Amino acid sequence: MRTTVGWRAEGPGTTLRRTPLERRELRPDDIAVQVDFCGVCHTDLHALTARTGAQDAPLVPGHEFTGTVTEVGPEVTRFAVGDPVAVGNIVDSCGVCVMCEAGQENFCREFPTLTYSGTDRHDGSTTLGGYSREYVVRDRFVYALPAGLDPAAAAPLLCAGITVWEPLRALGVGPGTRVAVAGLGGLGHLAVKFAVALGARTTVISRTADKADDARKLGADDLLVSTDEARMAEARDRFDVVIDTISAVHDLGPYLRVVAMDGTLSQVGYLGPVAVETMDLLAGRKKLTSAGSGGTPATAAMLEFCAEHGVTADIELLPSARVNDALDRLGRNDVRYRFVLDMSDLSAG
Amino acid sequence: MRTTVGWRAEGPGTTLRRTPLERRELRPDDIAVQVDFCGVCHTDLHALTARTGAQDAPLVPGHEFTGTVTEVGPEVTRFAVGDPVAVGNIVDSCGVCVMCEAGQENFCREFPTLTYSGTDRHDGSTTLGGYSREYVVRDRFVYALPAGLDPAAAAPLLCAGITVWEPLRALGVGPGTRVAVAGLGGLGHLAVKFAVALGARTTVISRTADKADDARKLGADDLLVSTDEARMAEARDRFDVVIDTISAVHDLGPYLRVVAMDGTLSQVGYLGPVAVETMDLLAGRKKLTSAGSGGTPATAAMLEFCAEHGVTADIELLPSARVNDALDRLGRNDVRYRFVLDMSDLSAG
Repeated sequence: MRTTVGWRAEGPGTTLRRTPLERRELRPDDIAVQVDFCGVCHTDLHALTARTGAQDAPLVPGHEFTGTVTEVGPEVTRFAVGDPVAVGNIVDSCGVCVMCEAGQENFCREFPTLTYSGTDRHDGSTTLGGYSREYVVRDRFVYALPAGLDPAAAAPLLCAGITVWEPLRALGVGPGTRVAVAGLGGLGHLAVKFAVALGARTTVISRTADKADDARKLGADDLLVSTDEARMAEARDRFDVVIDTISAVHDLGPYLRVVAMDGTLSQVGYLGPVAVETMDLLAGRKKLTSAGSGGTPATAAMLEFCAEHGVTADIELLPSARVNDALDRLGRNDVRYRFVLDMSDLSAG
Repeated sequence: MRTTVGWRAEGPGTTLRRTPLERRELRPDDIAVQVDFCGVCHTDLHALTARTGAQDAPLVPGHEFTGTVTEVGPEVTRFAVGDPVAVGNIVDSCGVCVMCEAGQENFCREFPTLTYSGTDRHDGSTTLGGYSREYVVRDRFVYALPAGLDPAAAAPLLCAGITVWEPLRALGVGPGTRVAVAGLGGLGHLAVKFAVALGARTTVISRTADKADDARKLGADDLLVSTDEARMAEARDRFDVVIDTISAVHDLGPYLRVVAMDGTLSQVGYLGPVAVETMDLLAGRKKLTSAGSGGTPATAAMLEFCAEHGVTADIELLPSARVNDALDRLGRNDVRYRFVLDMSDLSAG
């Protein structure tokens, strides 16, 4: 086994502690990546707070990171030592089902191997995430990080980014599409940047008017305040696509009502059971959908698009030693718009 | 006022009694229609059973009928006395909102005037439905009944038909589309006929295997038994479009799981609130939608399509005097697939 160091939760509680970690020796198609920057995703927080006691398996979060190739297995041809790369929330899949063959490994019939707290398909071990200095990963799930993308600000593209990129592309968003993005956090701010870069007429829907400046800075054309019933009523049937990034349970009715006829609301922020009034769909043949993560071709295409259009996340970069502070602030939504951990402090002492 | 005769519920209870009815004198753009055949829709049953006491307004159901023009107002140019015509569940709308201008009067922002228990936009009276010998209706909401369509078997096209025609067309169903129709009643059997006539590969989903012969007779390629978990699992991600005509509350999960990636489930049979697992949508970017009724251009197009392809409903024709029997049997799902009332007995004595 190889050894590295990372941030791990063990036993009850959500506090992460610096600890030595083991990584597997490289398989023929494996790549060893020095993790330089890792985004802090809401999922990390959920995974940590879901821990209930001493019997919980140790957890190393982190599934959106960029870094540098340090070693490659003998069968790896796409990458060489020194290449800048990126890894997202999937590190393996069955490779032979219809979804994998269609390049939608995120829908793998056998379920994809998740970057952390997943089960490795070969040795049955539990995967440990990117809050660490090294990650060993199958080459198929490694992406070249295009030149020109800041590696710290690019890290959140690998989870937050692809999660909103997929529905925007699947729903055909392009020049002139009327897009609304509900919620302006990690997912939402990237959805706005993508929609703007795709040429869409982009509106932010937020609970309060104080996001107007932020929305404008991100390139949005307009801000719609969801608590302003008069303006929400005016906006009825207005948007071809609504990307709903709100992470808490909420009434979908107001957001469905602003969807245009034959338009779609894609709910990406909250992934539990939802209640829908059929009449809110019927009145305009509106569609409700969801999306999460993406396949390898879409992820690679997104990174190329980002390089071409200069899209990265707006981040607050912290030394990885401040990970617990970052998680605490994320829980209070005190971040614009994504924390990224600088892992270089793990190489010291 | 004009007088006619029809079947009306008055006071508590759901029993319809033959009674004289008043119709308005013709406005300049009105048409008087002798109702020859009127379908018995589930909505009629719902409207009747929703009656709770003596204070309820009298109710004359019926919103899918065919008949003959007997008189036209001075501004009517599209129809003449003797023309065979059809009327559906909408008899007026505001005419000026974006939905009306788009030919989607069923989504009229001011709400369309329903064929029965609606409120007339001019005199404020409550509309009385097609379980009667005469109906007076604005010309814009009257359809020419194409030659070659049996007027009795065509009546259900005006509500059951358009309700399933709209989603099939809106979702682009055509040659090769993989369509499943869940539930094989009034809506379902027409959805199957339409899908087959549109060239789709059509499967019926039913709770029991005893519908296999019926499905085949309607032109379906296959029957999938929803209670057969193994076959439902095999059918995962199989259908581009699922038209769900089941009229009772039911778990949408099994029907969403057989929708293909980027495909759509259109729920048209049950119109109340539904619970959806976001993960059932996410895993394949599936869409949930609904539809109900249709606009005037779509309704006219559907009738032309039916004439061209020989599509009408499979009906059981009864004298209108047996309306209470028909409603009773409909409540027990004892009909294949639609009751139609022959109104000619109302002209006698």
